[in-house]
Amino acid sequence: MRNFDEHTITDAVLERTRDARDPRIKEISEALVRHLHAFVREVRPTQKEWAQGIDFLTRTGHMCDDKRQEFILLSDALGVSMLVDAINHPVPEGATETTVLGPFYVHAAPERALGEDISGGVEGDPLLVTGTVSSPDGQPIPHATIDVWHSDSDGYYDVQQLDALGQLAMRAKFHADEKGHFNFWSIRPAAYPIPHDGPVGQMLEAQGRHPWRPAHVHFMISAPGHEQLVTHVFEAGDQYLDSDVVFGVKDSLIREFVRREPGPAPDGWVLNVPYYHLNYDFGLKPLRAA
Amino acid sequence: MRNFDEHTITDAVLERTRDARDPRIKEISEALVRHLHAFVREVRPTQKEWAQGIDFLTRTGHMCDDKRQEFILLSDALGVSMLVDAINHPVPEGATETTVLGPFYVHAAPERALGEDISGGVEGDPLLVTGTVSSPDGQPIPHATIDVWHSDSDGYYDVQQLDALGQLAMRAKFHADEKGHFNFWSIRPAAYPIPHDGPVGQMLEAQGRHPWRPAHVHFMISAPGHEQLVTHVFEAGDQYLDSDVVFGVKDSLIREFVRREPGPAPDGWVLNVPYYHLNYDFGLKPLRAA
Repeated sequence: MRNFDEHTITDAVLERTRDARDPRIKEISEALVRHLHAFVREVRPTQKEWAQGIDFLTRTGHMCDDKRQEFILLSDALGVSMLVDAINHPVPEGATETTVLGPFYVHAAPERALGEDISGGVEGDPLLVTGTVSSPDGQPIPHATIDVWHSDSDGYYDVQQLDALGQLAMRAKFHADEKGHFNFWSIRPAAYPIPHDGPVGQMLEAQGRHPWRPAHVHFMISAPGHEQLVTHVFEAGDQYLDSDVVFGVKDSLIREFVRREPGPAPDGWVLNVPYYHLNYDFGLKPLRAA
Repeated sequence: MRNFDEHTITDAVLERTRDARDPRIKEISEALVRHLHAFVREVRPTQKEWAQGIDFLTRTGHMCDDKRQEFILLSDALGVSMLVDAINHPVPEGATETTVLGPFYVHAAPERALGEDISGGVEGDPLLVTGTVSSPDGQPIPHATIDVWHSDSDGYYDVQQLDALGQLAMRAKFHADEKGHFNFWSIRPAAYPIPHDGPVGQMLEAQGRHPWRPAHVHFMISAPGHEQLVTHVFEAGDQYLDSDVVFGVKDSLIREFVRREPGPAPDGWVLNVPYYHLNYDFGLKPLRAA
């Protein structure tokens, strides 16, 4: 096979993957070739534009290291991450809705006891977080594992300022109690722009878009017999709720971060400054029988 | 705008680029989002498969440096490079057909005089290359600039073995004479696998494909008033002509590398070993009036 033109090359490439051993790899390869070629045939890039595309992908790859994942940012900013999330979690069935993982999750979050302050000494308005983990029928799920992470009051995560902080902060792994209850202290997060000093930031600028996300706290919750839940809780009233750069906001995930005056908090701590209180009751979807 | 699902998110992302200032960027962004989302909706990746895709792109980026361009290899192996080439050069109109640039072109090729040996001392069968550069009507184009590059007899380019060679070799820039004629000596190139120790090699393996290209010499030819020509000349009889991993072969670009016995060559050199002779007469397309 040779002498391919604009109209024959797609079938030629598809024919070449006929011997793929794994049927799923064959399926994904074929779909990739068809959609990628359809994109190229539609936009009809010049050789210079094609070279600019190669350069964009190369710079995106070079931006990735163990603290920065520019391809996840790209997927997030193009709505692909939320599309994949929607495909994998179409119907909450009474469970909490899902949203993107984002690029700031780290596996090595420190284990903390319920009630502890996880702010790591970072300054900000104190935030009390409370809630429960249940099945959709309301049955508490005892001892669920709860990963939380969030930004500081300037919108930066610990991993973006590790040299200054010296340790992970505003991040922890808890276990709910036997009634599915959890509570901890941290600081109130802020809205923030996704890292935009790289190729994804240049893309957003060229597309006439802002890079902001509304303030939120990330949760990843796991329990035996249930699907893992990856979601955020967003602060009500944030100006970016309707223009989240990664398209992650759902009404059911918005809660007021209630301002409270100094004094005793619900968990018995006594505050001498105003603080905020966020409560969210999570529902985990039971695993379907195989 | 919030609460996006599998069916509403694509329009939400498209709506977000409405303020792009450059209409071409807007057009490309919109097409990218539509086709990328259609691909994702068709293959319905699991979260794990999505993460594997992110990892594949990240590793492809990390493989790129000033001597290796893994994203060009990916584009080549998926037939995208030849599709872009076909879109930009649909009808040769009597001029020479085009093919991919490939990842081994370097801007800094040494200028050489016609007739010189550009092998750089690399061992192999001597190869005499001769030809002309003309307009499609047969008029010679005087002093056309001719960039050539090719592999050694093991299939490796100079940039893949620079530490051993110490200099660029089998690569040069010439100027045709006033009659559009050129000639030089080098060594006969071999068929070779594209670099397959990286992510693109893993993709080919998973797709059940070999990584080979038939033996060829690259040409990039420029002259005032004419479109730049990027092409190869392939060796007739090569076993990979019908399965070139980058889909670049066209019948009009195949020539016999004619074996000659020791003795005087057409340019007056006298060989005491057998040598090969490749002749190709190139046609450049005149630039269309603006």
